[in-house]
Amino acid sequence: MKLMRVGQPGHEKPAILDAEGKIRDLSAHVKDIGGDAISPEGLKKIAGLDLSTLPVLTEDRIGACVAGTGKFICIGLNFSDHAAETGAAVPSEPVIFMKATSAIVGPNDNVVIPRGSEKTDWEVELGVVIGKTAKYVSEADALDYVAGYCVSHDVSERAFQTERQGQWTKGKSCDTFGPIGPWLVTKDEIADPQNLGMWLKVNGETMQNGSSKTMVYGVANVVSYLSQFMSLHPGDVISTGTPPGVGLGMKPQRFLKAGDVVELGIEGLGSQKQTFVADI
Amino acid sequence: MKLMRVGQPGHEKPAILDAEGKIRDLSAHVKDIGGDAISPEGLKKIAGLDLSTLPVLTEDRIGACVAGTGKFICIGLNFSDHAAETGAAVPSEPVIFMKATSAIVGPNDNVVIPRGSEKTDWEVELGVVIGKTAKYVSEADALDYVAGYCVSHDVSERAFQTERQGQWTKGKSCDTFGPIGPWLVTKDEIADPQNLGMWLKVNGETMQNGSSKTMVYGVANVVSYLSQFMSLHPGDVISTGTPPGVGLGMKPQRFLKAGDVVELGIEGLGSQKQTFVADI
Repeated sequence: MKLMRVGQPGHEKPAILDAEGKIRDLSAHVKDIGGDAISPEGLKKIAGLDLSTLPVLTEDRIGACVAGTGKFICIGLNFSDHAAETGAAVPSEPVIFMKATSAIVGPNDNVVIPRGSEKTDWEVELGVVIGKTAKYVSEADALDYVAGYCVSHDVSERAFQTERQGQWTKGKSCDTFGPIGPWLVTKDEIADPQNLGMWLKVNGETMQNGSSKTMVYGVANVVSYLSQFMSLHPGDVISTGTPPGVGLGMKPQRFLKAGDVVELGIEGLGSQKQTFVADI
Repeated sequence: MKLMRVGQPGHEKPAILDAEGKIRDLSAHVKDIGGDAISPEGLKKIAGLDLSTLPVLTEDRIGACVAGTGKFICIGLNFSDHAAETGAAVPSEPVIFMKATSAIVGPNDNVVIPRGSEKTDWEVELGVVIGKTAKYVSEADALDYVAGYCVSHDVSERAFQTERQGQWTKGKSCDTFGPIGPWLVTKDEIADPQNLGMWLKVNGETMQNGSSKTMVYGVANVVSYLSQFMSLHPGDVISTGTPPGVGLGMKPQRFLKAGDVVELGIEGLGSQKQTFVADI
């Protein structure tokens, strides 16, 4: 299933994409695409609906694909070829950091370049949405706790991240730096999360063209690993790292400026398109 | 005002401590001690109530003093004498990192030492609770965006934080590692947040005995600084760093084990008492 949220910011309705590409209103059946709806029971309930009976929505703004995210956790340097381009070693266990949940926006919303930014960069990532509380779960069981996947754009300000004293969260948490969606694609539709093409273009030019194949710590590993440190709750999102091709890794380096358009997508999970704008 | 939440986990009622030390039920007037109640309008409404008319609550479990926290942001190495004891330089601008909001618990709840932990450590901190959305605010205006203050225990697993590859969040986010409360003390009761005694004892022995006077980046500075990077929203909590005396800084180092009892408090903000227990 492709679950989504449509409507103006703060007023999104839960919805589902049907086989014909129509957006069907789920609001008579679930409150939102959040913890309850994406639990195993919630997903079962949605799967049992006759979509043809649900109202078609024509609203054209798509919101973040999940509501009520408590934690937005990222895995750093998780593609061997991306680690190499940034000059960092592949970490011996997952590097984790947090993105502020207040950074979350819809997949096609404008991204605001914060005041003082000179190094706003792109990162297409595979987002993993938790559907069931996970604590101390094994790698073998880890995917049982995953509701599905989405495209996640881990927008990053490199100077804030690494030149402004300690801890990456500072360059990762700016408002609008977390587009997720368009859809939460339930895991039954993704045969192998470690074999998905991932791409990103800036103004039409391909910058990232990779695959989740080269992820160092795969989805099951990461979910299990994180759950050793903290409980993962339904609605939590894990952004699992980016393949090579970010602006930071280019020679010369290249960063985003107001007016740039970034498009990105992952095989089976849809695509996003954002215009970057100045914070006036 | 001393706002609080009492009741079993997930079922806390909003409440207020009256002048006689009685806990008065606010649930007929506010939904919870969260974003709405702690906004300037919400606080004004509560301030207008005749507390003697409100039911007295006798429930003895105190919950976290604020609900619906979207971001739990910490300032690292923010006391010059604490930086020195850990062998780190005083940072040239604030170091910020996130603690998972899922770590938040009540002030006297048990703290669970995670499996595999050998270096669970204590940190008494001044918590700042945001009451109004703040973005690009000046230091001069910053306190207008603060609802009040609380005791915050930034429990930290030092090996997870610094010996397990990158980014401190890993050692800061374990379940139960974020006791806050007992009260959200509104800012009108705190004449100077930069002149508050702060103390922490382990099994009755004083470990930390400092003052917010030696904070490098004060509350107004930190709120203004953070707001340059991200919007702060009502209910967000900022834990502003710890004075010297943590286990990591001792020679030999000393860490917490199951059965240890930690008490901590801040002048005017009340105290907390936690028993540390194993994660069985």
